[in-house]
This record gives sequence, C-alpha cells and structure tokens, in this order.
Amino acid sequence: MVSAELTDLRQLFDRLFPICRSITGPGIRDSLQIFSEHMDLEIHGVPTGTRVLDWTVPAEWSLERARLFGPDGEVVLDTRDSNLHVVNFSEPFSGEMDLDALQAHLFSDPTQPDAIPYVTSYYVPRWGLCLSQRQRDALKPGRYRVEIETRKDDGVLNYGVAELPGETDDVFLITSYLCHPSMANNELSGPLALLRVWEKLAALDTRKFTYRFLLIPETIGSICYLARHGQDLVERMRGGLVLTCLGGPSQTVSFKTSRRDWTGDPAPVDRLARHLASAEPDIFAVRDFTPAGGSDERQFCSPGFNLPMAQAARTTYGEYEEYHTSLDNLDFMTIRAVEASADRVMSALLSHEVFETRYRNTIPHGEPQLGRRGLYPTLNGPMTSQFSTDSEQDGRKALERLLCLLSLADGTRTLLQIAGHIGCSVRHLEPIARHLESEGILEDVSQ
Amino acid sequence: MVSAELTDLRQLFDRLFPICRSITGPGIRDSLQIFSEHMDLEIHGVPTGTRVLDWTVPAEWSLERARLFGPDGEVVLDTRDSNLHVVNFSEPFSGEMDLDALQAHLFSDPTQPDAIPYVTSYYVPRWGLCLSQRQRDALKPGRYRVEIETRKDDGVLNYGVAELPGETDDVFLITSYLCHPSMANNELSGPLALLRVWEKLAALDTRKFTYRFLLIPETIGSICYLARHGQDLVERMRGGLVLTCLGGPSQTVSFKTSRRDWTGDPAPVDRLARHLASAEPDIFAVRDFTPAGGSDERQFCSPGFNLPMAQAARTTYGEYEEYHTSLDNLDFMTIRAVEASADRVMSALLSHEVFETRYRNTIPHGEPQLGRRGLYPTLNGPMTSQFSTDSEQDGRKALERLLCLLSLADGTRTLLQIAGHIGCSVRHLEPIARHLESEGILEDVSQ
Amino acid sequence: MVSAELTDLRQLFDRLFPICRSITGPGIRDSLQIFSEHMDLEIHGVPTGTRVLDWTVPAEWSLERARLFGPDGEVVLDTRDSNLHVVNFSEPFSGEMDLDALQAHLFSDPTQPDAIPYVTSYYVPRWGLCLSQRQRDALKPGRYRVEIETRKDDGVLNYGVAELPGETDDVFLITSYLCHPSMANNELSGPLALLRVWEKLAALDTRKFTYRFLLIPETIGSICYLARHGQDLVERMRGGLVLTCLGGPSQTVSFKTSRRDWTGDPAPVDRLARHLASAEPDIFAVRDFTPAGGSDERQFCSPGFNLPMAQAARTTYGEYEEYHTSLDNLDFMTIRAVEASADRVMSALLSHEVFETRYRNTIPHGEPQLGRRGLYPTLNGPMTSQFSTDSEQDGRKALERLLCLLSLADGTRTLLQIAGHIGCSVRHLEPIARHLESEGILEDVSQ
Repeated sequence: MVSAELTDLRQLFDRLFPICRSITGPGIRDSLQIFSEHMDLEIHGVPTGTRVLDWTVPAEWSLERARLFGPDGEVVLDTRDSNLHVVNFSEPFSGEMDLDALQAHLFSDPTQPDAIPYVTSYYVPRWGLCLSQRQRDALKPGRYRVEIETRKDDGVLNYGVAELPGETDDVFLITSYLCHPSMANNELSGPLALLRVWEKLAALDTRKFTYRFLLIPETIGSICYLARHGQDLVERMRGGLVLTCLGGPSQTVSFKTSRRDWTGDPAPVDRLARHLASAEPDIFAVRDFTPAGGSDERQFCSPGFNLPMAQAARTTYGEYEEYHTSLDNLDFMTIRAVEASADRVMSALLSHEVFETRYRNTIPHGEPQLGRRGLYPTLNGPMTSQFSTDSEQDGRKALERLLCLLSLADGTRTLLQIAGHIGCSVRHLEPIARHLESEGILEDVSQ
Repeated sequence: MVSAELTDLRQLFDRLFPICRSITGPGIRDSLQIFSEHMDLEIHGVPTGTRVLDWTVPAEWSLERARLFGPDGEVVLDTRDSNLHVVNFSEPFSGEMDLDALQAHLFSDPTQPDAIPYVTSYYVPRWGLCLSQRQRDALKPGRYRVEIETRKDDGVLNYGVAELPGETDDVFLITSYLCHPSMANNELSGPLALLRVWEKLAALDTRKFTYRFLLIPETIGSICYLARHGQDLVERMRGGLVLTCLGGPSQTVSFKTSRRDWTGDPAPVDRLARHLASAEPDIFAVRDFTPAGGSDERQFCSPGFNLPMAQAARTTYGEYEEYHTSLDNLDFMTIRAVEASADRVMSALLSHEVFETRYRNTIPHGEPQLGRRGLYPTLNGPMTSQFSTDSEQDGRKALERLLCLLSLADGTRTLLQIAGHIGCSVRHLEPIARHLESEGILEDVSQ
Repeated sequence: MVSAELTDLRQLFDRLFPICRSITGPGIRDSLQIFSEHMDLEIHGVPTGTRVLDWTVPAEWSLERARLFGPDGEVVLDTRDSNLHVVNFSEPFSGEMDLDALQAHLFSDPTQPDAIPYVTSYYVPRWGLCLSQRQRDALKPGRYRVEIETRKDDGVLNYGVAELPGETDDVFLITSYLCHPSMANNELSGPLALLRVWEKLAALDTRKFTYRFLLIPETIGSICYLARHGQDLVERMRGGLVLTCLGGPSQTVSFKTSRRDWTGDPAPVDRLARHLASAEPDIFAVRDFTPAGGSDERQFCSPGFNLPMAQAARTTYGEYEEYHTSLDNLDFMTIRAVEASADRVMSALLSHEVFETRYRNTIPHGEPQLGRRGLYPTLNGPMTSQFSTDSEQDGRKALERLLCLLSLADGTRTLLQIAGHIGCSVRHLEPIARHLESEGILEDVSQ
C-alpha cells in the first residue's frame, strides 16, 4: 500500500475534486479511502449522536442530486454541474413556488457575480440552493420546481489517522480537513500537502519524533478526535501543524502560531516559526494566533487543551476573493505551489528536529587555535580580509558564524537561540555545528 | 445636607471665585464651609506651629486690603479690583518711596502684558504687589504710597474630609486643593469636579471601594494630612486621584501616573490609566510621573509613603499661558468642560471597580457550541462573513471579542489584561463578559 | 623612574615608531623597555615552546634586514626604508629567481596603490615581501635576488605589567598591545593612551580599585597572561578596557562591550558604556561585542574566562582604509587625538568608580522642605518658573534633577540607574548627590 515513489498529486487531485464531501457521509468517506491507497491511513468512525465535548455528532448527510426547474420546465440548476449548487447539509425538499417565494432559499454573492458561493447550514435544518449572482439576475418571473434529493441518516463521522514512529514517543501532529466539496486551495491543497510530507518523512532513516497525521472534517472532526485522544495529546504532543490553503500564489509560507505563543508561553513550533519568519522573510512569515478565525487549531488550542498546534498556509482564507466559491479551482491554485509548500513545511520540520540542541565548546579558555585545524586563514593582511580560509568560498561569513557559535556555545543556549543571537537562520548554522562537533570542539549537552 | 440633585456648578463657581484664599486663613475656611453645604464635609484644623513631617504649619494669613497710591494720591492698585494684586502671604507694609525703590516689590510678567501674575511667598517674609506689565509700564516717576493691610496670626490650617462607604475598607482617595485666590482652571475646576464625582458616587447603590475626598491647601495640606493619616493610607489605600485643571479646552482627560508606575511597580490606577490612554486615545491620555512638578501627588508619592496616587487633569499647568494669572478665568475655562471631565473621571472610576476581575471559561475543552446558544451565525457563506449573528448589529466585532475572551479567560488574567491582549478598551468587554457570565460560560474567580 | 609630570607623547612616539616589532623578539622587548622609563613596568618572559591554553609560544623572531635586488642589481625594496617591506615573522631566504616565480612571494593591495600592506604569517612558515601596488606594477621582467635576513631563535615572549594599588583588591585591568611594526593609530595610539591614563590615575590621592596595566603582543600575549593569571582575574577582576586605535579623527570614543553584555549579563563597565553612549552621544558611542573581530578582548572574553573586558577605541580597525598599511602614520593619526581619548577614558574611569553607589533619602516622608535649606526658590510666580533658586544659574534643570534624585534614592537604585531614569548623564548627578550627602539628606547605603 505504501509506495516509495512520490504520488502524482495532479492525478490524485482530479480524482478527488468532483466528490461532494461534507462533514459526514459518503463524500468524505470515499475521499479518505482514496488517500488510504497512498499512505497507511486507518479510517475511524464516531457514531451519530455521540456527545463529544460540548458538541453532538450529527447524522450522515448524503446528496443524490439537487435541481431547480424553471417556469418552462427547463433545468436551471443541477448539482451534476457543480455540487456547490446545493447548500451543504441541506434538508431534502420537493415542491413548487413562485420566484418571489423561492428567493429566500437562494444564495448568491453580489460582490462576485460569476461565483457560486459555498454555503453550509450544519446545525440548523434548512433547505437552499446556491448560484452565481449572474444566474440569479437572469431568473425570469414564474413558477419554479425544487427537487433536493438529500438524506440525513444515523451513521458515523469518519476521520483517518496515520503514524510514523520515531526515536521518541513525543508526537508531532499534522492535520488537514477533508470536508469541503469541489474546491481547490481551501480544500484539497491541505490533504495533498499532508500526503507529500508523509511520503518524505516516511523516506527518512530516522525521525526524532513520532509523526501522527490526521485527515478530518473541520471543527467537528477535531472536536471528536480531542474528545477521544485529547488527554493523550496533552501528555505526548510536542508540536503540530494544521495544513490549509497551501496552493495559492503567495511567495511565503506563513505559520499561524499557537495559543501558547499568544499567551506568552510559546511552544517550540512557535519559536521556530517566529525564527524562520524573522531570519528568512522572503520565504517564511508568521501570523498571530486568534481564536476568532482559522481552522482546527481553534479546537486544539482551546484553553482546556492548549496544545502546541500551529497552522501552515500559503494564500489564506480571507486573502483571496475566490475563497469559498466555485472559483477556488485550478485556475487559482497550482499543484506546483502545493508541492513547493510541502517542501518548505518538510524543511521546517527537519529544522524543528534539531533547533533546540544545546552545544558546549570543549575548548572554552581562549580561542581554540583554529589555524592549525584548517579553520582560520594563516596569512593575514588588509587585502585578505574578504577571505576566511585559504580554500573556502564565502568563508568569511562562515568564519564569523563559527567564531560566534564557539563563543555562545556554553551549553546554556539552543542552536536556535544562537542563530537568533548572531542574526542568521538556524539552517545556516547546522553544517558549521556539525563540523565542529566532528572535530570534537563542540559536544551536544542537550539532554 | 446631602442632596440627590446635582449642584449647579456655575452658581457655586460665582460664590467661590471672588474669595481671596491662601494656604491658611479665612479665605480657605470660608470656601470649605461653602462646599460643606453640598457634601458631607468635615472641616479639620491643624494648629499653627505644629511640626508636620519635615515642615511646620504656618500662621493664618488674612488680607484686609492692599493698595498702591500714585504720586498724585490716586489709587493705582487695589485688591478690591483683583485679589491677585497682593503677593499671596505678603507681610503687612505701610510706607512711601520713590518709584525706583518700589520696583523691587512689584511683580509683573513682560511675556503676558495684560495679565496680573499670581505670586506667593509663603515661607520667606516679603511684601509685594502684582500688576500687569502694561500697568507697570504706565507708572510715572514720583513718590508712591503702599498700604498693605495683611495679618499673620496663630490659628489653624484647615482642610475638609468626606467619605462614602463601600463593600470593602479599601480606600480610593480623591483630592483637590482650595488655596488659590481668584483663578478658575487652576483652582476651582478641581474642587468643582470633585463635588460632582462625590455626588455621582453617592448616588450608586453599591460601591466596591470606600471613597474618601479631601479638600486641602496644596502641598502643606497634604503634608498635614499625611503626617496624621499617612500610615493608615499606606495600609488601606488602593488608589487615588488628585483632581486639578479640569476645565480647559483640551480634548483629552489625562492621567499623571503615580511614582509606583515610574519606578516599575504600577498601581491598579496606573495600569487603568495607561490602558485607557492606549485604547481610547481620543478621550484619555497619560503623563509620566515626575516629582519635579505637579500638585499634591508629589507628597502622596514621596518615597516614604509611595502611595498609588495618580492625578487627573485636562489642560494642565504649563500647557496654557493664562496659568497662574488673572486671565485664568471663565474666558479660559468653562463649567461645561469641568462637568465633562467629572463624567470621564467617574467613568474611569467605574471601570476601575471591575477591570481586575479574573474570569474563567467553564467550557474550556474545544469551543463551546455557541450556535445553539444564539451566539454564532448558523448559516455560513462568503457573503455572510461581515455579519456575526442573524440578528445583532456590528456583531462581527463583538463575536471576535467574545471568542478571544473565551480563549483567554482561564482565570489567570484580569479583564484589563484580556482587553489589552485583544486590543480594545476594557469598557467594550464589560457587557460581553456579563452576558457570558449570565450564561454560565464564564465565572468570576478573582478572590 | 616615575615622574609626576606628563610624558611628552610626541617625543615618545618618535622613539617608538621606527622599531620593527613583532609578537616576539627584540622589537617588542626594546619597546617595553622604553615604556618602563615612564611607568613602573615589570617586564616578564614566557619561554618559547611553552603550552599556553590551546596554543604554543612561538620562537623569537628578529629582523636584520630584508632587501630585493632588481635585474640590474639595483635595490628595489629595503626594510631600512620601511620595516613593512618584509612579511612579519617571515622565514629567512636568500636566492635568485625570475619575476614570475617571485610574484607568489610578493604582497600588495590593488585597492590602495600607494600603501605597503602589513602582512603576517606567524604560525605557518613562509617567506615574503610587501610593497605598494604602484611599486609592484613598475617591476620589470628579469632576474631578481632576494635577501631576507631574519632569525627564529628559542627565547621568550615578553610582556609588561604595572599596578596602582587602590582601596580594594578588586582589579580594573587596562591593556594594550605592542607587537606591530611602524604604524600609528593601530599600534602606538593604544600604548601611548595607556601611559597617559596610568599617569593620571597615579596622581590621584585615592583609587577605589586596584588598576593593573598590561602591554602585550596581541592574541598570543593575552593567551599567555590568561594561562598564568586567568583564574586570578576571574576572582578579582571587576572591569577592564583594551585600548586600541585611539588616535583617529572620529568625534566619539566608542566602547566595545564585553561578551557578558552580549549574552545578557552585562558587567558594570558595559552598563556604564551603554549609559554614556546613550546620555552623551556626541562624545561616547558603543559597539556590540563580537568574537569575530577586534583585539585581546576576544581572549579575555572567551567563554571559559568570560571576563568583564570592554574595549575603547576612536577610529577603529575597518573604519579607515589606512588600517594595516604604511599609511597609518602621523598623517592619519594625531597625538592630540590620543591625548583627548585618554582624557575621556580617564573621565569614564572616574565615573566608573562611583556610578553604582546606592543612596538613600533620609527624609523620605513628604518632600524635604528645600526652601529653608536654600535649595528651592522662595518666591513663586509664572515669570520665575525658568529659574530654580534665587542665585543659581540654569538651576531649574538642577532642581528638577535634585527632586528626581530625592524621589528615586530609596537605597535600591544605583546612581547610574537614577541617571538613566531621569535621562541625564551620571556625570551630571554627581555634584548634586554629593551636595545632598553633605546636607545629610542622602546617605550612601551601597555596601
């Protein structure tokens, strides 16, 4: 089931996009099934009606078809054209009425006349249809027939879990949600990036942390998972990322930090996020935590759990007008951007594994004589000051960092703190630290 | 004696303005007597010569009349025209001299040619007369006669005290000074505002603190009060405000924080002042403590007492050129501004009563399902994101604050800290907190 | 040997400049000998081959003469013209070769065509000659003869120590290096300023600290001294300054703070440096510590010793293009600047002796009645507010500082902290503090 090759994300996208997902029902179940062909995903179910924290698991919703017929019997809207045409979780309905009466059940967005808006009503029973403002304006007076064939049945709420073991039982949790119908950036980009990160982590020889992956319906899915495993996460979870909106055109991958950062007790993942955004602002950015918007981190970071759950995104909800409409498709999102985002998340995870190592300089009295170890220029003059060693390219900068690292590595500082002190990215210190460790001049005294 | 109606401050102003007050004597005593007609004011006396801290209570000073007669016998200056014409606390003097010799005893301000300056010499015996620069320049050469009829007699230094009991014995102290002769903003605005605040606090059903009011002569009055009651204040005083200069044209009421704020140990009143100035900068402002200028807070905040005494003012000493001259009158100050200032001080006091309440979210695991409690929109789509609930006006902002409050209310933070965290005024969180408390979602865990 | 008069630094400069110093050998030994004529300098020696920390003491290097002869037998280069013409620590060499083969042993700087660069190769055996780019470009093809008469013999590495006893055994260490050949700002300015500071401190009646002075070869000299006395310094050293580059045209004397400042645990000398730079930015400046450039503070501040060693300089290495070339001479540096720098260092040292005194206000309850002590204006009016006392010039500012000092002097703050709080230089508070102490209003409660 697990393949050493990387999945073709475009082909996978094309299979997943047409499915009418919701927070429960066959749409999300089928989608999870497809992902399980590419990763070791266990699919779980929570029965309808189960009390989960302050919430109750809703019934399974399924859509057969929804149509609107016009005064002349013509098909005006059909979910076979776009499954956004029905309000997600809509009640079934069959009946006729005048256009005036129908209007209360139609949803469109006048600010985006060509977009079909994505509308949901999970917890209050309603029926409704969605259409572009242009379609709506063209509706002629007369008698319309509505045929909404949906069902709400007792069943289960599904989610999927995969795990990659590591050197320790500390868990790093990576989640995304899989409950929206046909949308790209704010739906499929997250699960696709999650799959790619899973594949790259699975290919490593060793992993410091145990990586756990969740694919869930948004909000109620994390509520369910927390009801079952929240206490375990409180004990074992070292960090986490919600992956969302990773396929847009923004230059930076941005991290929304966790509530712990917001309340002055930042988690390692928060510290790393702030560091990367500060050290490499062309590539990384940071967003402050807020409980008033976002995705599942709102639940993981609720004060009772207060988990170190950050969120990674590229072009986020609210930053693009195609958000939550039929225009959030491959005209807006690219598979290439999803892959690039996954690579950056992967790189951040690799840094995350080592950025809190504390090194100690084993020759702390006076400077070590670097010259006889080939680490210092042996000939000094004003015209050689732009070079660091006789051989190394751009070695001046590396030599400065080496000397700073030796000065600061007294066993009390993490590599991240030293990078921050020096003003470079922790990623640039890694090879220097490794070289000095191999020379015996640095030793790891972290534990 | 106490009236439920609000005193007409303009009528009161007109009675008080003409009186020639000083730090001792009949002027301040009569003024205190007038205030006692409107509030439960007890008038106290400290005998002349009493040692008070590092100071000694001076004799009572009274002015009968002071005049300057010109070379032709004409009256050039007369305190019946303005009691600023005599140096406050001047020695009596009667004699004749040439204009040249007289000059050493005349005080005027060339930078304000039409203003009679207010000059005092409390602790070094001097005689002198004050006049406008224009008057002085018009004095013709020749022989002048000075008749200064003042007296210094053993007696008492007077001050007045009123108290409104509260739920606790913690004292909030509100003071103003009543020792300047005929001036408006820097004299009567403070006592008038103090009376208004007294009336509004007296009308409340409950008060968290015991409010104590002082009307004193500046500096020596607070020295006297501290000599008698300083230790008691150290034990019981929770906060305080010196009211001064509250009738000028400035848009903001500004708080001068206490010495504790200056030395890094801010009192609650300091924290509230800084918060209001930061959250509502159009209405409130803050000034840093300094011991080198100001009013009685200099004594209350002396390091031996270090009381949490702030000061409230509108257009302060040093900010307006009419300060300490005959031009500080109702052309400069308005009764309406005094009343508006008192209202803002009152509003700050009401916030002060609750801003350090710590609330705890009783449903901390996951978000409470707000939808079923009517606190969350039940229909979600891109075009509804500007609304928060189906009914509420501008509810989006309130919903954001509600979610932030729920996230931050873990019993460790005060309402002020939460307001600061969110970036709104504590006054805007109050109704939300009260609503959530009534729903049982928040509870007060302050004590 | 010690003279109460100040040495003529220009005459001394002229004696020292021509000597071909290196880190070992007769050049530095003779130079130390000359300094010992002006201060109580003990000259020490560390034998060749001694292991010192991670290093080994090199042999003594001496230059007899180095010359390059051209194709026609003419003298092209001769160290009798400039001792920079030989690579410092060059191996002896005698031989003939074509210009092409010679080039690998010639050093010049194309960016400074008229300057002979100063080049060293202490720890890797090399032979070489230095010349200006203009000289080099004029070399005609043909056969050249090289005669480098240098020697490396077993002997000692020399350094000099002087000490001025003080009231305590706490050591303040002042060092400079004396190992460069004929250069001015980056060689002789430091030792000359050190001598001047020694003379001024020696003339004081009392000194709070024991002042120790070191003249050493750079890097290996401080390594040697630390190998012998490092542990003693860890116990006794209260502060220190490396003096370097003090004769250039910059307006400010700048302090490079110690590693302790860099790592968040600033030493007194660091706090004073930051204070002076902040309070008097026209005169003083501050540079952050770095282990990647500078002088002997790199060794004193290595993490194993972590001594409170700052560095004082005027126009520093890297700030001027004449650095480490034959153009660093009296056309660039002035003796007047060296003397002015020494005066400022001396002034900083005097402040350093008192800036951490903690004073206590003995009349803390209410303000002391300053008027009866002649410290407050006795006549107050709007036109007198620009004066502080009846007599004192610019007394308003001094009175404000006095009142602030009284308010803050509760025995918990140093004079430096109070100066920082008020926003003035600690040098301006000194006379006020002394006056109040003499009045018994302040007392020293430091110990």
